[in-house]
Amino acid sequence: MERRRPLFLRLGLALCLLWGAVPIAGAAAPHSADTQECLACHVQATPGIVSDWQRSRHAQVTPAEAMAVEPLSRKVSSPNVPEGLKGHSVGCAECHTVRAEAHQDTVEHNGYRMYVVVSPEDCRTCHQEEATQYRKNLMAHAHDNLMKNPLYRQLVDAVNGLQTFDGGVLQASAPMAHTNEDSCLSCHGTDVRVQGTVSRETDFGTMDFAVLSGWPNAGVGRLNPDGSHGSCASCHVRHGFSLEVARKPETCSQCHKGPDVPAYKVYGVSKHGNLYGSLKDKWNFTNVPWVMGKDANAPTCAVCHVSLVVDENKKVLAKRTHAMNDRLPWRIFGLVYAHPHPRDPETHKIVNADGLALPTRLDGSWAAEALIDKVEQDARRKTMQAVCLGCHGTAWVDGHWERFEKTIEETNRMTGTATAVMVRAWKEKRAMGPPDNPFDEALEKRWVEQWLFFANSIRFSSAMMGADYSVFDNGRWSQSKGLREMERLYRSLSPGQGGR
Amino acid sequence: MERRRPLFLRLGLALCLLWGAVPIAGAAAPHSADTQECLACHVQATPGIVSDWQRSRHAQVTPAEAMAVEPLSRKVSSPNVPEGLKGHSVGCAECHTVRAEAHQDTVEHNGYRMYVVVSPEDCRTCHQEEATQYRKNLMAHAHDNLMKNPLYRQLVDAVNGLQTFDGGVLQASAPMAHTNEDSCLSCHGTDVRVQGTVSRETDFGTMDFAVLSGWPNAGVGRLNPDGSHGSCASCHVRHGFSLEVARKPETCSQCHKGPDVPAYKVYGVSKHGNLYGSLKDKWNFTNVPWVMGKDANAPTCAVCHVSLVVDENKKVLAKRTHAMNDRLPWRIFGLVYAHPHPRDPETHKIVNADGLALPTRLDGSWAAEALIDKVEQDARRKTMQAVCLGCHGTAWVDGHWERFEKTIEETNRMTGTATAVMVRAWKEKRAMGPPDNPFDEALEKRWVEQWLFFANSIRFSSAMMGADYSVFDNGRWSQSKGLREMERLYRSLSPGQGGR
Amino acid sequence: MERRRPLFLRLGLALCLLWGAVPIAGAAAPHSADTQECLACHVQATPGIVSDWQRSRHAQVTPAEAMAVEPLSRKVSSPNVPEGLKGHSVGCAECHTVRAEAHQDTVEHNGYRMYVVVSPEDCRTCHQEEATQYRKNLMAHAHDNLMKNPLYRQLVDAVNGLQTFDGGVLQASAPMAHTNEDSCLSCHGTDVRVQGTVSRETDFGTMDFAVLSGWPNAGVGRLNPDGSHGSCASCHVRHGFSLEVARKPETCSQCHKGPDVPAYKVYGVSKHGNLYGSLKDKWNFTNVPWVMGKDANAPTCAVCHVSLVVDENKKVLAKRTHAMNDRLPWRIFGLVYAHPHPRDPETHKIVNADGLALPTRLDGSWAAEALIDKVEQDARRKTMQAVCLGCHGTAWVDGHWERFEKTIEETNRMTGTATAVMVRAWKEKRAMGPPDNPFDEALEKRWVEQWLFFANSIRFSSAMMGADYSVFDNGRWSQSKGLREMERLYRSLSPGQGGR
Repeated sequence: MERRRPLFLRLGLALCLLWGAVPIAGAAAPHSADTQECLACHVQATPGIVSDWQRSRHAQVTPAEAMAVEPLSRKVSSPNVPEGLKGHSVGCAECHTVRAEAHQDTVEHNGYRMYVVVSPEDCRTCHQEEATQYRKNLMAHAHDNLMKNPLYRQLVDAVNGLQTFDGGVLQASAPMAHTNEDSCLSCHGTDVRVQGTVSRETDFGTMDFAVLSGWPNAGVGRLNPDGSHGSCASCHVRHGFSLEVARKPETCSQCHKGPDVPAYKVYGVSKHGNLYGSLKDKWNFTNVPWVMGKDANAPTCAVCHVSLVVDENKKVLAKRTHAMNDRLPWRIFGLVYAHPHPRDPETHKIVNADGLALPTRLDGSWAAEALIDKVEQDARRKTMQAVCLGCHGTAWVDGHWERFEKTIEETNRMTGTATAVMVRAWKEKRAMGPPDNPFDEALEKRWVEQWLFFANSIRFSSAMMGADYSVFDNGRWSQSKGLREMERLYRSLSPGQGGR
Repeated sequence: MERRRPLFLRLGLALCLLWGAVPIAGAAAPHSADTQECLACHVQATPGIVSDWQRSRHAQVTPAEAMAVEPLSRKVSSPNVPEGLKGHSVGCAECHTVRAEAHQDTVEHNGYRMYVVVSPEDCRTCHQEEATQYRKNLMAHAHDNLMKNPLYRQLVDAVNGLQTFDGGVLQASAPMAHTNEDSCLSCHGTDVRVQGTVSRETDFGTMDFAVLSGWPNAGVGRLNPDGSHGSCASCHVRHGFSLEVARKPETCSQCHKGPDVPAYKVYGVSKHGNLYGSLKDKWNFTNVPWVMGKDANAPTCAVCHVSLVVDENKKVLAKRTHAMNDRLPWRIFGLVYAHPHPRDPETHKIVNADGLALPTRLDGSWAAEALIDKVEQDARRKTMQAVCLGCHGTAWVDGHWERFEKTIEETNRMTGTATAVMVRAWKEKRAMGPPDNPFDEALEKRWVEQWLFFANSIRFSSAMMGADYSVFDNGRWSQSKGLREMERLYRSLSPGQGGR
Repeated sequence: MERRRPLFLRLGLALCLLWGAVPIAGAAAPHSADTQECLACHVQATPGIVSDWQRSRHAQVTPAEAMAVEPLSRKVSSPNVPEGLKGHSVGCAECHTVRAEAHQDTVEHNGYRMYVVVSPEDCRTCHQEEATQYRKNLMAHAHDNLMKNPLYRQLVDAVNGLQTFDGGVLQASAPMAHTNEDSCLSCHGTDVRVQGTVSRETDFGTMDFAVLSGWPNAGVGRLNPDGSHGSCASCHVRHGFSLEVARKPETCSQCHKGPDVPAYKVYGVSKHGNLYGSLKDKWNFTNVPWVMGKDANAPTCAVCHVSLVVDENKKVLAKRTHAMNDRLPWRIFGLVYAHPHPRDPETHKIVNADGLALPTRLDGSWAAEALIDKVEQDARRKTMQAVCLGCHGTAWVDGHWERFEKTIEETNRMTGTATAVMVRAWKEKRAMGPPDNPFDEALEKRWVEQWLFFANSIRFSSAMMGADYSVFDNGRWSQSKGLREMERLYRSLSPGQGGR
């Protein structure tokens, strides 16, 4: 098919070729002819996106240049970037057209076959290791791990479902069609599907566009129209792809601030977070590798969980990983009990001895075959501790970890007590347990808060020494008070009435 | 009346005239003789205020200079600033003496007729358009809309009133005299009234000062001693009048962070807020007009709601407005149900079909004649979307708005369910409804939280994609749990007992 | 004893002496031979610590230089720093070896007698006034004031204790051994004790280290192995000892953000906090004395509570104090009622007329002999107001303080009502009061929240004009709602049943 290029485009292109030769703010790398053609219109149509990109490394450095630096400083991990892409900037066309065949959202667009939703598989062209690692990350499967786990699907329904009050009794029904996307899936990722195409009048004539359901979304486990999972833009935000942004904890706060996973809040009141808050404008957030002590005096989320970090002697403290699990011996949130990390990132496939899709039984015992063993736990603990030891002595690090792992035991015991109240209430039919939705009655919701909010908060606080979240703010105060309130509510419910 | 000037003042003045001729930190514009006389003492009496002002544009630029710039860059909107004010800086005397006749708080002060409380009508001298727009802003009427609405006045009493426990029963009484000012009116604005004058010994001799009730306060709907409403200093903080401060979301957080209006918290965990948090020190907060993509990579509150913003092609994305309503099709917080924006900013004048001072009935139907119609809603939505489209494609923007408006419908339905429980309880005299205070009993307070906290939080979160506040942190989790707790409490209340 | 120095150390030392003569990043002062020897290994063993220190003033300035500046700018308050320490930087050896005799955690370490835990008594060598003042600070006694107060010890047990659910009844038991350290004592300070020594293989051979319980910790009232109380590193964070960090409110947030003491959150939504958030990158956080109006346009925590602050005329607004009480007429948090500040920082020694370790009786009347009198209150209020008056007029300051002190009265009255419900419940044996744990039952926990969370929050908000925390977010809304819920719970408890 010959590309049809309207007159305005050909004129724009001519201007652009000229423009591409003129130095503009921050733009150093030559742009491909295709990208220049895109820019001819989009500098008018979506100027903010173009501005953002122009200031990005993608606009300023060619893959060939990026591949030429020494291994520890390399950001392009693919050894064999296609020759045709190496010599110019990574622009509109490079991300939105090169894998058109794989994308169900591809449309004909001014002579190009273009898709809107760029996926980790597109980024893989240059960032192969990161794309491969990310597949092993629980986060890549956040959509499925929520929506394909029958138990967690009941939690979604209990939270998002409509309720009515008919004849003096609350009745639950399914969530509205948009609700899950506006709620849980905002972070977990939506299922982005092509529903058809639509013609729209634009400043540049009539054009066709893909109609997408589940859009917009940048959730970490998004299901993409090319069949892949996740969105690199969750952290490497469009269209600046800034390393600085990804390394700063504000980025993580988007999904890790709430009571279910209060990492950002806890970090803020930890000594590490205090230092970040006070001194960050003196730190270097773009250096690769990232030199602890020189580029930063305290870790951000990325230092401990993702980044390649070295000390001033260039000794590697931790290798870069986009499968954050690599440094995590324990899974401390999101489930009834803390437990060794799952082996397989697709946790929705786990079935415990009671047939429930949980990594532990309700008494807290582990679904051991689905979880990493002690050897792997020890290895991961060592990996994380190597980061700690960059700035702390052995006694400090060992003392900290010992206390943290005692707190895991402690919070599991307290969760066990709350679960004992719940299980007894189910047995006595004071509430209706599985297979009935175990998350929708008043007592059940109190039980959920004991583990989904309070035990988590205490563990995060212990892990990062962010004291108050272990005591008053959703901490041990809430945990001990919650148990007392559960006990009172348990007693006020009549046996055999199922919560009514 | 001849001005009496004590010797120390005349000496000070002589020094000051000298000093005015000498360049000092940041001061470039000539100061009027009156202002120089003020400074002679106040550099000693209130050095922090003088320092703040010296670094402000008011001290550095004359109105004549400010009026000479091209229209899109002009900050002085009045076409006819009085000649006598044009040629020197905007100093102490220019703000605190020129409208002495209009001010009930004017006192004789070292030969000047001076007032303390500067109002929007004073600022109007140079900033006419902004003052006129602000009058149309709901915020300018925040005091009256709370205190003159009989229903909302009951809410104020229920929150701020004293309570005693006599004979085993809680008894409510009125708030203490200072309480409303320390509480709701801190944001809504106090009624600042002159109670008389007082003589005080100062370092410069005995002087008279106005005695003001309701002072200090910088609430957005403050009633001023010149009869005007509001305080420009709510956002343009004394005495720096900094554009940077007004454009940064921290300023908005003063009144928009709590559970009743969690805009700042939601923004912080939105992608826009993440970017602000990470990159703000690279942005330009003083450029006028404000260039999206160049001066900033993501919006702050001011970008979407107030500022004149353009793209890099100098195309105007949105005109400046100090009547924030101009860009708002919906009112999403503060009332039982979300609804089209009120026509008249004085919402305390609204009466619904049931005779209540509410823009909807308790079943959610609109007091349509008091609200903007669909045509106006469409126009306002377009105005706001033009800002979105500066950086996002049409599919993104349309998908986002469609989801957001579905969430308005959803949260209204869930609020309807909570209100159905409440209305039934009132009918059955399990609680005492209007004309009895409908906000003071345990069940009523649970009902209030359903709409004043949870439904709002979900809507703000949907509007800004700040995910967690739509789920766990005062979001759908709290909404669904709250309903279950309301149901249990409803049942535990005996019919006919009115909550006792 | 002759020091044994292994070969590698002697080689390292030689290199170091060379290195010490070469300018390195930020290092200007000569290092002692001992410190150079430490660095020889530690630049490899703990590079992050060394980097941090190298950028600190301790590495860059000698005490002799620091003592030579004019009095208002001096940071070294001891008039007689030992001669042997004056001429070189304050390095590893200077802090970790000079008081070896006084430290129970001292071990033999490569020929040195070295201790890990540096205490305020070590810092006293150069910072005598600050160490002496800090002893008078309640914070220095935060461990004892919690753990030696029998009533507060019951609160600790009620929050941190394990619970089990046996036979349908909750049973409380003691906290696990690590829990208090992970919880309350994280801020209040642990009891750091030497449990023995351990030999560890290191990169530099086998070495002995002290085994410490209660470690790591940087709580403000830490009990140190040299018998002293507190940790300067709580705010002057290891090993940068940055004045900037200590002056920024993020540092205070570590322990002053939770619902029990929400100072940081309230500050953030106050006008002062708004300005800090917007403008801090333009402020000077290292100037001594700190010039209000020039170095900063609004106070941080340190300005009002700790720092030496002057105005642009060099007039001292407030002298530096590390006994923060000096500027505090009232104690507004942590106890059942607000009350005049205690005379003695060791508040665990207070016994009220009822024999309880509280500064008031349960009816709110003061244990007057333990508290400062009106004269002292007036003096402290004046001290604090002098800071306010640096930037605000008298009417503003007086109006603000009058309102604040009315709010103290108001919140005490509301707490009195909640306490009346509680006392009546105890009398009627609906709950089990003292000597039984008064903090462990459902009603008791509601009562605690009334004063430990809500009344505090309102007072902090009033003190700093951080509006929302006085209304909805743990403010008067929560206080009035909490009372109603206490009343309902009170009625639902059967007399004589003691909460069961």
